[in-house]
Formats: sequence, C-alpha cells, structure tokens
Amino acid sequence: VSEPRASLPRALSAPSREDAETEFSRIVAFTDGVFAIAITLLVLTLEVPTDVSDLGRQLREQWDEFFAYGLSFAVLGSLWIAHHRFFGSLARFDGRLVVLNLVYLAFIALVPFSSDLLGNYSGQSVAVILYAANLTAVTLAFALQTAYAHRRDLVRDWAKPYTPRLAGPPAFLIPFVFLASIPVALVSPRAALVLWIATFFADPLGDRIAGMRLPK
Amino acid sequence: VSEPRASLPRALSAPSREDAETEFSRIVAFTDGVFAIAITLLVLTLEVPTDVSDLGRQLREQWDEFFAYGLSFAVLGSLWIAHHRFFGSLARFDGRLVVLNLVYLAFIALVPFSSDLLGNYSGQSVAVILYAANLTAVTLAFALQTAYAHRRDLVRDWAKPYTPRLAGPPAFLIPFVFLASIPVALVSPRAALVLWIATFFADPLGDRIAGMRLPK
Amino acid sequence: VSEPRASLPRALSAPSREDAETEFSRIVAFTDGVFAIAITLLVLTLEVPTDVSDLGRQLREQWDEFFAYGLSFAVLGSLWIAHHRFFGSLARFDGRLVVLNLVYLAFIALVPFSSDLLGNYSGQSVAVILYAANLTAVTLAFALQTAYAHRRDLVRDWAKPYTPRLAGPPAFLIPFVFLASIPVALVSPRAALVLWIATFFADPLGDRIAGMRLPK
Amino acid sequence: VSEPRASLPRALSAPSREDAETEFSRIVAFTDGVFAIAITLLVLTLEVPTDVSDLGRQLREQWDEFFAYGLSFAVLGSLWIAHHRFFGSLARFDGRLVVLNLVYLAFIALVPFSSDLLGNYSGQSVAVILYAANLTAVTLAFALQTAYAHRRDLVRDWAKPYTPRLAGPPAFLIPFVFLASIPVALVSPRAALVLWIATFFADPLGDRIAGMRLPK
Repeated sequence: VSEPRASLPRALSAPSREDAETEFSRIVAFTDGVFAIAITLLVLTLEVPTDVSDLGRQLREQWDEFFAYGLSFAVLGSLWIAHHRFFGSLARFDGRLVVLNLVYLAFIALVPFSSDLLGNYSGQSVAVILYAANLTAVTLAFALQTAYAHRRDLVRDWAKPYTPRLAGPPAFLIPFVFLASIPVALVSPRAALVLWIATFFADPLGDRIAGMRLPK
Repeated sequence: VSEPRASLPRALSAPSREDAETEFSRIVAFTDGVFAIAITLLVLTLEVPTDVSDLGRQLREQWDEFFAYGLSFAVLGSLWIAHHRFFGSLARFDGRLVVLNLVYLAFIALVPFSSDLLGNYSGQSVAVILYAANLTAVTLAFALQTAYAHRRDLVRDWAKPYTPRLAGPPAFLIPFVFLASIPVALVSPRAALVLWIATFFADPLGDRIAGMRLPK
Repeated sequence: VSEPRASLPRALSAPSREDAETEFSRIVAFTDGVFAIAITLLVLTLEVPTDVSDLGRQLREQWDEFFAYGLSFAVLGSLWIAHHRFFGSLARFDGRLVVLNLVYLAFIALVPFSSDLLGNYSGQSVAVILYAANLTAVTLAFALQTAYAHRRDLVRDWAKPYTPRLAGPPAFLIPFVFLASIPVALVSPRAALVLWIATFFADPLGDRIAGMRLPK
Repeated sequence: VSEPRASLPRALSAPSREDAETEFSRIVAFTDGVFAIAITLLVLTLEVPTDVSDLGRQLREQWDEFFAYGLSFAVLGSLWIAHHRFFGSLARFDGRLVVLNLVYLAFIALVPFSSDLLGNYSGQSVAVILYAANLTAVTLAFALQTAYAHRRDLVRDWAKPYTPRLAGPPAFLIPFVFLASIPVALVSPRAALVLWIATFFADPLGDRIAGMRLPK
C-alpha cells in the first residue's frame, strides 16, 4: 500500500510552483480568504449600543474598542503583506509547508477574538497578555514557515541571499519580544501595549522579519 | 543591512503589473474579499424579532434597518465598482499604494457597524454623523489613493488625460460634501441623510470621482 | 467634461469578455464571494442551546431551524449553479449588467435573514411570506439580468437559440409563482412552503429558467 | 423543449477541465471560499466573557471552547487539503459532481455550529454525538464524491490506479468509524472523542482516504 501512496499526493508535493500553479494558487487564495474574513470580522467586535438615551457618550466609552479595531486591522494588514511577500519569494512548496501555513492561519483567525477581548478589557493584564500571546504565536508560526522554506530550499534564487537572516536567529527576535512583553503586562497592561506598538514600528527590529515593513 | 533590504521586497515594488501579475491579483482578490464580506455581513444588522406575538408589526418597525441595509448595499456596491475601475486603470503599483489601499479597506470594513448604528438610531444626530464620517473617511482614502497613483505615474496611458481631474481638487469634493453634511446632521439627522443621498446621485458631483457612476 | 467621461469607464463597458478578462473575473469572483459568504452565514441561524439540562430535547425543538438551513443551502446552491451557467454563456458585459447583478446580490445576501426568520417562525404566515418575497425578488432580479443580456446581445453564439425562452415571458414564470404563493401563505404557511418546494423541483417549471436544474 | 435543454447547460457538463477552465475554477474558488469562511467563523464560537471581575479564571473555564476551536480548525484544514488533492486529480467534471460537492459543503459549513456545541457541552453525549454525526456526513459525502468521480472516469490518468482504493469499500471505512463512535458517546462522551481523534490520526485508517494525510 505504501508505494502507490507515495505518488498519489503528487499534486501537493510537486517541486515546482509552475508545475502545480492551480494547487499553489488555491493555497494562496485560501490564505487570502482567511485573512480577508478575519480582518472584516473585526467589525463584529464593535458593539452597537442598546441604550438610546445618550448615544454620543456611549460611543465615546467605546473608544478602546475602536482603538483595538484600528490596531488589529493594522496588525493583520501588515502580516498579510509579509505573508504576501514571503509567498512571492517561493519557487516550490511541499505538504509540510501547507501544514505550517494552516497552523499559522489558525492563530491569524484567532485575532478577532483576542482583539475583542483587548477592546473590552484593555486595562486588565490578562487581556493584554492574551493578545500578546496570540501575536507571539502568529509571528513564531511565520518564522517557522520562513525558516523551513529557506532550509528546504523552497525559495527563488533572488531570495536566497537572505536565507541567513530569514532562517537564522534574527527571524525569532520578534516572537521573543512579544513573549518578553507578557511579564510587563502583569505589572502594567498599558505599558506592554505601548512597548509592543513601539517594537512593531521600530526600524531595526521591524527590519528583521522580511516584509514586515514596506519599501520606502 | 540596508542594501539587501532594498531589493528584498522586490515583489511589492515591482514597477509593472504584468511582471508581478500574481502579486497584483492577490491585492485585487484581497480587496474584493473584504468588499464581498463587508457587503454580506450587512445582513447581520437585521435583527430577527424574538417576540412571536405580532411578527408583522415588529418587522414594520424594523423599516429603518431594511432602509439602512439597502442604502449600505448600494453604497458599498458603488464603491466597489469605483475601486474596480480605478484598479483597472493601473499599470503599476508600489508598496505605498498597498498601504493606502489597506487604510481604505479599514474604513470599508467599518461600514456594517455604521450601518447597524444608522438602522437602529436613524433619528439621532450622532448615528447619522458617524455614518457620514465613515463615508467621509472612505471617500477621502479613495481620493488619496487615486491622487497618489496619478502623481506617481502608476496609471495606464489611456487614463492619463484624467490626471488633473482625478488627482486635483475635484477629487476631494465628495469627501468635502460628506464632511459638510456633519453639521447639518446636528440640526436634523434626516435632512443630512437626504442631502447626502442627493449628493451621491447628483450628476455634476458624482461625475467628479472616476467611476462613481456607471456609463449610460 | 462629458467627452473624457465617456471613455474613462472603458474597463467596465468593454464589449468583449476576452479584452477585459481581469475585470470580468473580478465580477465573477465578487459574486462567488457573496454567494459563498451568504451560504456559510446560514450556520449562524442555528442557535446553540443555553440550557444544559436536556440538550437532546432542545435540539429536537430546533428541527425547523435545521430544515430552514438545509432548504436555504439547497436554494442558494441552485441559484449559484444557475448564475454560474448564465455567466458562462456571456460573451460581453456592460455597466448596467454589473448594476443588475449587484441588485440581484443584494437579495441573495438577504437570504440568511429570511432563512433565520423562517427557521424561528415557520408556522407564522408573515415569516413564510417574507421568505417567498425574498425569493421572488431574487428570481425576478435574475430574470431581469438574463433578459437584459439576451436583448443587448451579450451572450455567446451557442446560447442565442435560447433567447426567446430566456428573455421572454417564460423567464418570469418562476417569479410569478413565488408571488402567487404569498396569498396562500396568508391562509396556511405550511401549504405555501410545500407548494413552493414542489414548484422549485417540478420538471416543466424548473425547466423554464436556464440552469435551475442540472443535466441528467 | 427537451432538445435545446440538453445542450444549454453545456458549460457544466463540459467533459474536459481545460475546455471549461473558468467554470472549473469557479467551483474550486466557491469551495475554497466556503472552507475559508467556515474555518474563520470558528472564532465566533469563542465567547468574550462579560464579567470583568476575574477574567483569568473565566478564560480557563473556556478551555473546552479553545480545544474545540483547535480541533475543528485541524479537522477543516485536513478536509480542505484532502479536497484540494482530490480536485487536483480531476480531469473532467459534470453537473452531478457539482451537486455532490454542494451537499458536501452543506455539512462542511455546519462544522462551526457542531464545534460551538462541542465547546459548550463537551461532557454531554448529545454534543459529541452531533459532532461525530456531522463528520460522518462530511466524510460520507466526500467518499461519495470520490467514488462517483472514479466510477464516471473523471480522474486524470495518473490517479486511475487508485480507483479500487478510492471508489471501493475502503473509502467508506472512515465514515463507518465515525458512525460506530456514536454508540460509544452514549456511554462516555470523552471516550468517543479520544477514539475519534485516534482514528483520525491513525496510520492504516488515515491512509485509506486519499490525501487525508500529508506526504512525509
């Protein structure tokens, strides 16, 4: 039974992207679909006030929810651009990369929940920790994916000079920073939030993970 | 570190749409996905009555919700056609346009929330103002996108004669009208709504933003 | 100003599908997106019981909701196949067809709401009437679309022999049956439901609208 | 009337995938859309606690919900890969396969509901039974689809040697195991869950349905 099985899943273990263009574009389309749905579901975290008496005041009290919406939209948008760029650099793919990508997407699809929690309880440590943990998992899964692709030589020639940077220790720096922000959140939730935003936009760190920042 | 980084994000800064067809179509597909999801999520703003005694009367009282549904479907549909036409005129794209497009989508994805608010509190100034503010932001982000594309010479040759109209002051006329309708809503919410609808369908104004109206 | 405007929206008024393949596939992808989202949102009409004491009995009481889910999935699936087949017969498209398609989609996206209502209140006339009215609107919008395409000569040569059937009175037979079922629902909601299902699957009627039934 | 009707739906009964590439890719895109939406809607099964006093404890009590989220994400991801591989092996398709695929999708789109139920009532037999029944239906519908495709000779040449395995009794082994786990759940819900997970990952069984497991 093992011999036919080795060749049956040919479509997914196809070495070249060009040979399996349909399969590759289905993976890309599925990923984009999950991103687009997750980013649009963020709107469901904004609650329409049920009390009609002072709508303006209620909306002002929802400020944290609007902040979490904007933050998570920016985060998911940046991650999508990074994923976009990473997949643009692929020459080949295999079944294991597809599985790593699914694990990555499982944490991407979780962001609307973490964002909802953050919007409702931004002053509580546990909400900020959970949001940071979610993004730690996302960036870790992304780092694993890029490291795997570079080690298995799945990337196009022009992207190979970046292998040491993408597959080595620097790729795991961002996940580490998110992880390190968790104890900070225990002391001050807002401090962790500020630290994390600063890290996300800081030049030397943001530079580490391929495509986290756009070309000037 | 800065030198390799300059060439790494090649996929997104690719000058020609044909050279980066996969990347371009991913951006288009992502945008269409957000539009399709946002427009379909509008249905969630319609509440199924929980009281079984007089379903007919309850549905009639939901008239404002049905109105907001139809209005927002028309608005998002028109905006999608306009975006569709704008991207059809692009010869090139760059990273900054992708970011501007994401900012635009952040406000597009917000429409189901604003629409829900409008459907529930159409008689209150603050709900109408928030809806107008959302559309001000949407049209402003779209005007910025088109102006940027024309200034950076990203459009196809046949679209270039329209540069002064698309990248100049007229492009910002519609956002200005939405902005101006906000004080009107403070006095009369319904007047702002009527004014805004009239503006949206009026010939000379609708003509200003490319593709807001369909060819006869 | 009117002269440049006449040629600007070229992308949408492009006579040939091959000349504007990207634009055409965006319309198709957007339509498929709305269908896929609407059909998947149907699951949200199924309520998870909140009472833990007798889960089995509660789920049996939800039978009408499961019935509405299955019915609406079959309805949206059939409509998607019909739309799929109709668009497969198009040689050209224009802006007005895009607008007609958006109107059609506005009623497609409404089905999860009507289905939710039907699942919760299947014994009440008003719920059945609203569901029938929704499908009347859907099939009417589809009949308008096909009639328009045939009259404007937008279909491929092999589809032209069907013009009389698709663009003439027979195309409006199904919408008429849905419309006629509304007074029946006033007397007996369940009778209207049965009548409507029978109509949907009946050979001579189902045959009238292109693609409503699959080839044997 | 029957003669023209026989040729009208040509687009769907087109024997070759290459001749009807647009139609085929619409079916694939629609399927991927339903999968992507269903997998992302899983996040809505995670409830944001409404009590602010002890957020940490409440989240720990939600452990079953997080477990159901991860399980269902893995299940839908595996099923998507299997579907992906099956459609990659198709050389042709016909209308009946499209209908079988829609029936399959109706059960796929139901998973977020079953998963929500499982997350809330994982200790109750009825919730585990319903989840098992849902997956029985999914795998049965998939087995029917693959069996139909192999019997009607719709698969590519390289996939034909697998016909006996894919279209014969082994294809129905997995659905049978799910079915058999239902009486187990009556005695012990958790035992059924463990049995089912073990079955899903077990080598000799997982090997039976094409593509349920990825190549090493």
